[in-house]
Amino acid sequence: MSIRIFVTGGTFDKEYNEITGQLYFKDSHLQEMFELGRCRVPVDIRTLMMVDSLEITNLDRELIAEHCNKAEEDKIVITHGTDTMADTASLLAQKVTGKTIVITGAMIPYKFGSSDGLFNLGSALAFVQTLSPGVYVAMNGQCFAADNVRKNKLTGEFEELSNSK
Amino acid sequence: MSIRIFVTGGTFDKEYNEITGQLYFKDSHLQEMFELGRCRVPVDIRTLMMVDSLEITNLDRELIAEHCNKAEEDKIVITHGTDTMADTASLLAQKVTGKTIVITGAMIPYKFGSSDGLFNLGSALAFVQTLSPGVYVAMNGQCFAADNVRKNKLTGEFEELSNSK
Amino acid sequence: MSIRIFVTGGTFDKEYNEITGQLYFKDSHLQEMFELGRCRVPVDIRTLMMVDSLEITNLDRELIAEHCNKAEEDKIVITHGTDTMADTASLLAQKVTGKTIVITGAMIPYKFGSSDGLFNLGSALAFVQTLSPGVYVAMNGQCFAADNVRKNKLTGEFEELSNSK
Amino acid sequence: MSIRIFVTGGTFDKEYNEITGQLYFKDSHLQEMFELGRCRVPVDIRTLMMVDSLEITNLDRELIAEHCNKAEEDKIVITHGTDTMADTASLLAQKVTGKTIVITGAMIPYKFGSSDGLFNLGSALAFVQTLSPGVYVAMNGQCFAADNVRKNKLTGEFEELSNSK
Repeated sequence: MSIRIFVTGGTFDKEYNEITGQLYFKDSHLQEMFELGRCRVPVDIRTLMMVDSLEITNLDRELIAEHCNKAEEDKIVITHGTDTMADTASLLAQKVTGKTIVITGAMIPYKFGSSDGLFNLGSALAFVQTLSPGVYVAMNGQCFAADNVRKNKLTGEFEELSNSK
Repeated sequence: MSIRIFVTGGTFDKEYNEITGQLYFKDSHLQEMFELGRCRVPVDIRTLMMVDSLEITNLDRELIAEHCNKAEEDKIVITHGTDTMADTASLLAQKVTGKTIVITGAMIPYKFGSSDGLFNLGSALAFVQTLSPGVYVAMNGQCFAADNVRKNKLTGEFEELSNSK
Repeated sequence: MSIRIFVTGGTFDKEYNEITGQLYFKDSHLQEMFELGRCRVPVDIRTLMMVDSLEITNLDRELIAEHCNKAEEDKIVITHGTDTMADTASLLAQKVTGKTIVITGAMIPYKFGSSDGLFNLGSALAFVQTLSPGVYVAMNGQCFAADNVRKNKLTGEFEELSNSK
Repeated sequence: MSIRIFVTGGTFDKEYNEITGQLYFKDSHLQEMFELGRCRVPVDIRTLMMVDSLEITNLDRELIAEHCNKAEEDKIVITHGTDTMADTASLLAQKVTGKTIVITGAMIPYKFGSSDGLFNLGSALAFVQTLSPGVYVAMNGQCFAADNVRKNKLTGEFEELSNSK
C-alpha cells in the first residue's frame, strides 16, 4: 500500500517573491523532491494547508488529525513548519492511534538550493516504513517520539526533552 | 554509539574536471552532505577507497567486509557505486553478522546540484537506525534485503529479484 | 588598470537566516561570484555599505559619489538594490564625471541558487570595459543611461523612461 | 533589432546521463539561461550543431561562417566548446565582415550548478551590444580579438598570444 503524504507548508515550501522581496507560499515542491530523489515508493500527496507553522491553530491540528484518521493508509508523512512541529506531534499522538505518522520539515526552503529538506524527506520516508505505530518527529537525521521532543530555538536543532533544561 | 560511515566512491562523489572534461574522484562529499542535512546523529566517516564500482574487485569486497567486522559500531552505512552495489551487499551478507549494514549511492553526482544522493543518504541513515541486524541496499526511498535486489540497468532503478524477469 | 567594485548590498547579497526565517545581510558574495565566473579581469572589491536599497539615503548616495571620485580607477561597477538603483545612478551622473560607472543588481539573491546576479555581473563587467565615460544601469542584459531608466515595479524589469507611461 | 544566438554545443550544454554515467548533449540550455538572467534583450536562438568542439571540422566552421553571413542580424553571439574556440574565431574573422560576432563558452556545464556559463553569457551579450564590427572571444570576463587569443590548456584560461610563449 502506498504512503500518504500530507503537506501543511512550512519552510520546506517557501519561495522568494522577486517583486516584493518577501517569502511566500505558492505550490508544494514535494512531488518535485520525490522525483529528484528518484523515489519509487508509491506515495499519495495531498496539501491540507500551506502556512507558516506559527499560524497553525489547534483547530488546524484537529483537522490534520482527522485527515490522518480518515486516510486509508496506515503510514503517513506530514511536512510541517519546524516552530510548532512538536505541538502538532503531541496532539496527533492523542488523537490518532494504530498508524505510523512521521512529521518532518526543513530549516532552509527547498528552492534556496542548499536545503536540508531533501535529506529530511529521505529519512522521514525511511522511518515511516520501519517504525511501529506511533507519532514521531524526524529532523536532523534523528527520530523523536511525539512526547519527547522540542525545537531548540537558539540552535534550530531538535532535541529530547530529557536532554534539555 | 555513533554510526560508522564507510566511503568507497561511486557516482556520489564524482566531480567534473574542467581542464580535461572528465569525471573523476577528489575528496568525499559525505561530511559536507551531513552538514547540509543538519545531521546531529554522531557519525564517524572513513574513506576505504574512492573508485567507480565497476572497478571494485572481490578482494576489495573482502576488505570492506573486514572493516565492517572490525568496526566498533554495529550500525554501518556504506556509500558505493550503484553498478555493483548488489554484489557487495551479497558478499557482506555472507561475511558479516550481528550488524546492521545499509549500502547506498546516487545516480547523479552530489556536485551536479540535482543529486538524489542527499535523499538517499537521509533514508540510509534512518534505515540503519531502525532495522534489525542484516545487510540492506537503500535506493529510491526503498530498502532491499541483500539477497533480493538488483539494479535494473535500463531504468537505473533498484528492484526485488522476485519482481523482475 | 584594475576595475573598482563597490558593494552596497541589495538583493544580490541577501541570505536566509534559518533561525529567524528572515532575510539578512552577512558578507558580500562578490568575490565568490567572480571566482565562479572564472573572471580574470583584475578587480578590487570594496564594501561601502550592506543595506536594502530602500534604506539608502541621499547622504549615502553622496558618500558613494565621493568614493567614485576618489577611486584611482576610472572604471567602476557598483552592486546595488534594484528599488532605488535609478536614483543613485541619477545622483552619480551629476556628481561624477570622466569615469565609466555601471550599476547592477539582482532580483533573486545569489545564495538562492537560481540568481540572475551572475548574469548581470558578467554583463556589467563587460559594459564597464567598453562604454565611454558616463553612468549606466545594467539589468536584464541591457544597459541604460542614468537619466533614462526606471524600474517597473509591477514586472520587476528595467525600462527606458521614454518607453513607459 | 534582435541579437542572433548560434548554438554549437560545447561544455555549456553538456548533461550527465545517469544510466551510462557519460556526459552527452540533449537540448540547448540557452533559452533557460536567458530566462534565468531575466534577459529582456530580444534574442533569436538557433542551434547549428551540438558537438564537442574537438569534433568541429573546418567544414563545420565554414557552415557557421555562412550562417553568420546570411543572418539578418549584425550582432551575433556563438556558444562554442572552449578547446577550439580560437580556431573558429580565426576562420570567422576571415570569412565574415561588417558584423559584431562574440564567441563564448563555459568550463563547467550549466546543468552542474556552479557553472561559469551564466557569467560568460552575460558578458558576451554586453560585448556584442557595445563593440564595433569584428570577431571576438569572450571568456573569463575578458574580450579578445579573434587573432590574438588562445586557450591555455594547463590553466583552462584564455590569454592573449602576445602575453604567452
